[in-house]
Amino acid sequence: MRRIKFKGYGVVLPKNTVSFKEHIRYRISEGETQLQLAVAACEKALKNSNISINDIDCIVSASAVGVQPIPCMAALIHEKIAKGTSIPALDINTTCTSFITALDTMSYLLEAGRYKRVLIVSCDVASSALNPNQKESFQLFSDGAVAFVVEKSDEEVGIIDSTLKTWSEGAHSTEIRGGLSNFHPKYYSENTKEEYMFDMAGKSILALCIKEIPKMFKEFLENNKMKVSDIDMVVPHQASVAMPIVMQKLGVAKGKFIDEVKEFGNMVSASVPMTLAHGLEQQKIKNGDIILLTGTAAGLTTNMMLIKI
Amino acid sequence: MRRIKFKGYGVVLPKNTVSFKEHIRYRISEGETQLQLAVAACEKALKNSNISINDIDCIVSASAVGVQPIPCMAALIHEKIAKGTSIPALDINTTCTSFITALDTMSYLLEAGRYKRVLIVSCDVASSALNPNQKESFQLFSDGAVAFVVEKSDEEVGIIDSTLKTWSEGAHSTEIRGGLSNFHPKYYSENTKEEYMFDMAGKSILALCIKEIPKMFKEFLENNKMKVSDIDMVVPHQASVAMPIVMQKLGVAKGKFIDEVKEFGNMVSASVPMTLAHGLEQQKIKNGDIILLTGTAAGLTTNMMLIKI
Repeated sequence: MRRIKFKGYGVVLPKNTVSFKEHIRYRISEGETQLQLAVAACEKALKNSNISINDIDCIVSASAVGVQPIPCMAALIHEKIAKGTSIPALDINTTCTSFITALDTMSYLLEAGRYKRVLIVSCDVASSALNPNQKESFQLFSDGAVAFVVEKSDEEVGIIDSTLKTWSEGAHSTEIRGGLSNFHPKYYSENTKEEYMFDMAGKSILALCIKEIPKMFKEFLENNKMKVSDIDMVVPHQASVAMPIVMQKLGVAKGKFIDEVKEFGNMVSASVPMTLAHGLEQQKIKNGDIILLTGTAAGLTTNMMLIKI
Repeated sequence: MRRIKFKGYGVVLPKNTVSFKEHIRYRISEGETQLQLAVAACEKALKNSNISINDIDCIVSASAVGVQPIPCMAALIHEKIAKGTSIPALDINTTCTSFITALDTMSYLLEAGRYKRVLIVSCDVASSALNPNQKESFQLFSDGAVAFVVEKSDEEVGIIDSTLKTWSEGAHSTEIRGGLSNFHPKYYSENTKEEYMFDMAGKSILALCIKEIPKMFKEFLENNKMKVSDIDMVVPHQASVAMPIVMQKLGVAKGKFIDEVKEFGNMVSASVPMTLAHGLEQQKIKNGDIILLTGTAAGLTTNMMLIKI
C-alpha cells in the first residue's frame, strides 16, 4: 500500500448552466477562463485543508487540454498561487483520467519521501471547443475545476493498487485534432473549423470499453485477491449516460457507484476528482471504506485504482 | 539511489537544415510531422536496445508542445508502435526539461517495481510556430526527437538525487499563448497570428537563471556532499548561446559540459536527451561516470539530476 491521504479538496463550477431536457451542464461565460477556475479550485483546496501554499511541495496540473501550449499549465497556476516560491510545477496528462494518473504517479514520490504534500488540480473547459453539429458531445460536456491536497500518511490508508492500460485502437475515437503541431491554428478557416473542435464517436468507445474493461477489472481484482463486493463505492469518470451500462458489465451493483451525469455531465479531467469530492462531502465515502477510482480516457486509456480511505 | 540504467536510445533529426552564419538548425519540411519523428525515435531506441515493444511496460511522451490537444501524445505514438497491446501511455510536461522530469518521476515507479522498463520520448517541432520577426528564437530552435529505454538495474547505477524548482516570475518569458483554451484557434487572424507563435524574452530568462540557479546548484551539491569537480560531465539543455555563461556561473569548467548549440540549436524537449545520447555515443560519458542532467524550461522551471552511469 502506498500510504497517502486526502487532506482537502476544492470544487469550482462556472456560474452559467445550460439544460438539455433534464440534464444540467456547466459552461464558462464571458470573463471566465480555464485558468481562473483552476486557480479558484486550488485556493479552495488549500483553505479546506487549512494550509497555505507554503505547505505544498509540488503542484501538478492534471488536465486534458491546457491553457496555452507553452508554458505547461502548472506553471501558469503557480504564477497565481505560488509566485515568489520555488515550488515545482509539472503537468501529467492522460486526458479524462489525468487526475487518477497524476495521483497514481505522484503517490510513488510521496511514498518515497520526495514530497510530503502535493496539490493536484484538474480543470477543463470543453465548452470552448464543442461542435454544435455533434449533439452527443455538445449536450454531454461541462466545464469545471477540482483540486485535491494529497499527503503522505502514517496510517494504513492509501492506494492498495492501481493499473493503467492504453488500447490505441481507440486513439481517434475522441479527438481535438487542431491547435498544436498537427493542424496549426494558421490553417483555421470556415472549412477546417471542425478540426479544432471535439470529435467523439461514443458508440465505438463504448464497444471497445465493453470488450476490454471487464477483463481488465477481473484481472485487477484477482491480483488483489478481492471481489467486487469488497468495494464500498466506485467513483467512476462521468463519461456519458452509458456509464451505468459499463458498471453493470463490471458487476457493480446499483447504489455502489456514483452517477452524476445528469446533474453535472462529463467534465473531462475534472469529473473523477469532482465525483470523489462529492462522495466524501455527502458521506457516500467514509473513513475505512475501500473505493475504486476508475475511468476511460481518449487514447483509449483506462485507469483503475483501489484506495482505502 | 534510484537504480536505473539506460538500455538504449534513438535520435532522429529532420532531413532539412538551415544555417544562420555558422549555426546549423534542423527543421521539418513538407511531409514530415512531429508524430513521425517521435515514432522513428522510439523505433530506433527499441532497435538500439535490442528489444521489442512488448518488452516495454509504459510509454511516456515528454514533449513541450503536443501533436494535438486530444488525445495525449503518448496515445498517438502508441497507435504507431504498440497498437494491439495494452501498454500504458501518458504525457509528462515541463516544457524544455520534460525529459528530465519524466525520467525523474518514472524512476520512482521503476524503483518501486511498478514497471521494469519504460520508453521515454521527447519530440518537438518548434519550427512550426516560430516568429520570423523574433530573430533570437527564429535562429535558435531546431526540430528533433529522442527516445530512451530506461530500465530498473540491480547494479549501483542510477539517479543519485534530483531536484525540480519553478519560479513563476518567468511564466511569460517563454510562451506560445494561442492554440488551446486561452486563445482558441478560432481567433486566428493576420492581427492575432503572433499569439500562436513562440515568444521568448531571452535576456529576462537569463537574468532570472543567473539570480536563482547558482544558489540552487550549491544547495543541491551540498545536500549530496559533493563538489562541482565530482561531476564528470554536465549534460545541459541547449537553451541558447548563453548556456556557457550559466555553466561558468555554476563553476563548471570548460570541457566538463557538452555544448552543441552551434551544431544543433535548442530542440526544446529533445535537447537534453539528444545531448545525453551524443555524450554516450561519443564516449564523453563512460560507465562509472557521474553526470548532471540540467536545464531550464518555460515556467521558469529548472531541473537538476545527478546520475551514476
